[in-house]
Amino acid sequence: MSANLSIFTPVQEDIEAVERLIRAQADGHHSDISAALNILLASGGKRIRPSVTLLAGQMLGAEKETLITMAAAIELLHTATLVHDDLIDNSLLRRGVPTLNSKWSPAATVLTGDFLFACAARLASETDSISAMKLFSKTLSIIVNGEITQLLSGKCKISRENYYQRIYAKTASLFETSAWSAALISPTGPQQAEKLRRYGYNIGIAFQIVDDILDFTGNQATIGKPVGNDLRQGLITLPVLNYIERHHDNPDAQFLIEGNCPKDEEQVQRLIDAITNSSAIDSSYREANQYVQQAVDNLQELPESPERTSLQNLSYYITERRI
Amino acid sequence: MSANLSIFTPVQEDIEAVERLIRAQADGHHSDISAALNILLASGGKRIRPSVTLLAGQMLGAEKETLITMAAAIELLHTATLVHDDLIDNSLLRRGVPTLNSKWSPAATVLTGDFLFACAARLASETDSISAMKLFSKTLSIIVNGEITQLLSGKCKISRENYYQRIYAKTASLFETSAWSAALISPTGPQQAEKLRRYGYNIGIAFQIVDDILDFTGNQATIGKPVGNDLRQGLITLPVLNYIERHHDNPDAQFLIEGNCPKDEEQVQRLIDAITNSSAIDSSYREANQYVQQAVDNLQELPESPERTSLQNLSYYITERRI
Repeated sequence: MSANLSIFTPVQEDIEAVERLIRAQADGHHSDISAALNILLASGGKRIRPSVTLLAGQMLGAEKETLITMAAAIELLHTATLVHDDLIDNSLLRRGVPTLNSKWSPAATVLTGDFLFACAARLASETDSISAMKLFSKTLSIIVNGEITQLLSGKCKISRENYYQRIYAKTASLFETSAWSAALISPTGPQQAEKLRRYGYNIGIAFQIVDDILDFTGNQATIGKPVGNDLRQGLITLPVLNYIERHHDNPDAQFLIEGNCPKDEEQVQRLIDAITNSSAIDSSYREANQYVQQAVDNLQELPESPERTSLQNLSYYITERRI
Repeated sequence: MSANLSIFTPVQEDIEAVERLIRAQADGHHSDISAALNILLASGGKRIRPSVTLLAGQMLGAEKETLITMAAAIELLHTATLVHDDLIDNSLLRRGVPTLNSKWSPAATVLTGDFLFACAARLASETDSISAMKLFSKTLSIIVNGEITQLLSGKCKISRENYYQRIYAKTASLFETSAWSAALISPTGPQQAEKLRRYGYNIGIAFQIVDDILDFTGNQATIGKPVGNDLRQGLITLPVLNYIERHHDNPDAQFLIEGNCPKDEEQVQRLIDAITNSSAIDSSYREANQYVQQAVDNLQELPESPERTSLQNLSYYITERRI
């Protein structure tokens, strides 16, 4: 992976402060809470969302402590949704690391997720920004509503509109908030805030598209779940949509177009092979790149700075990542 | 039950507005969300918490719409915690009405609870009061932390301190916030706010003590769960504490004092009979009444008004209720 670590250089120390603030949420609580936070932080990936907040806020002159608090709230909200998601999906691994629900009882997992929601809300309120708080709670609504819709709606829906609504709720909304909230706590106007909102939205959409591609092309060991997992669960993602749009004649594609879910593992495997070897992967990457380009375009009118360069590089990094 | 319905007269219309606002949270969402909200509202009891908010805020001249929004946030937060609680305890009935988790999958129940948290946080942010929002998110932390502590700590702890900490987190914290938040969004000073905070705290403690008494003396049909349920689950409440303090010589009391949970249903039944027929019930009511008296005392310096009379009557009502 060509992860350009220098992307995070302007905010490296602040990311560490964010992690310390997250760990401090367990202070004074049951020792198992502290253990849970450590498990979650250890498996928590690259902290892209809080980095976006920190980079954007630093670029616009936000007050340091407020910015770190907001970034920690964002990461905790993200973590809280993952904890409940993994429980609901009964996922045993995330990024190859055992999930909380694989070790803990459902009761403890539900409450740990709730605890993280509570901490996130409390940190967001500590920024003393009404607009950031409103955005924060609205984002939580969008994410949860998306999960409920996904759970309660029929599976295997062949619809681009449905797909984009889903990935907005699931991923892009929080990326949008990561960037936008930084503007809301900075000494800047609505125009720059809107640019940052669009930047966050676009990298968020690109991020999820790439996630959905990696579900087909990734290596089971690195993505931590079996290849084609989404399709197996009845989740139609962009590579599938792009494949069936160009292969109406294929019997398996036709089967999905008729509104069915794959009937058995054999059909899932045939579809995975067909999709992976088709142009659907490339065309999905092209679609992701269009969003990346829009993200970068929205940065142009923001102050030239090392942070802006990092935000730009971060956009490109999203379509290059392999895990 | 001598429920004095006139207690709620000064805010009757506003309570209906609160319920409409809660129902409106489902607008634009999946129809099952609407169904869930209706189930929850139908089984939701007497709306004591939002009534406290409305009465206190109206007494202090809070802006009507803001007050209704805050009251709805309070009731939604309460409902959200009940949804996750019932799931965790695997409770099939609440007040004799089937719980959400008795009808829905665990996944749908977890997400419905999350949705209610999200709505509650969003409504709280719509009051535009930083201090009310901070209080709100802190209360959520206290409630969830209490639940985690209860889940992860050992059962059958014989400790008054432990008991009072538990009922503060579980119940009194939200009553405290119901009253206090009304002051925070009213044109009043910190002194009246503190009086209201104490009022809410004290009625909350009394409310939970009475709940714990009713767990012994209540009728299974009206409380919607078997008598002595807390003790059966390893939860030591005030009637138990008051009983064993006066009956060290009783072998069953001695068994608990040694740190054990009841060893079988026979012992549970013996303890229930002994406690119910002892002075432990009366002394627990006396303890609850002391908190009620403190609540009433804290009302004295607040503006004389129909609302203050209702808040006072509400305090007395708490120890008189039988469900």
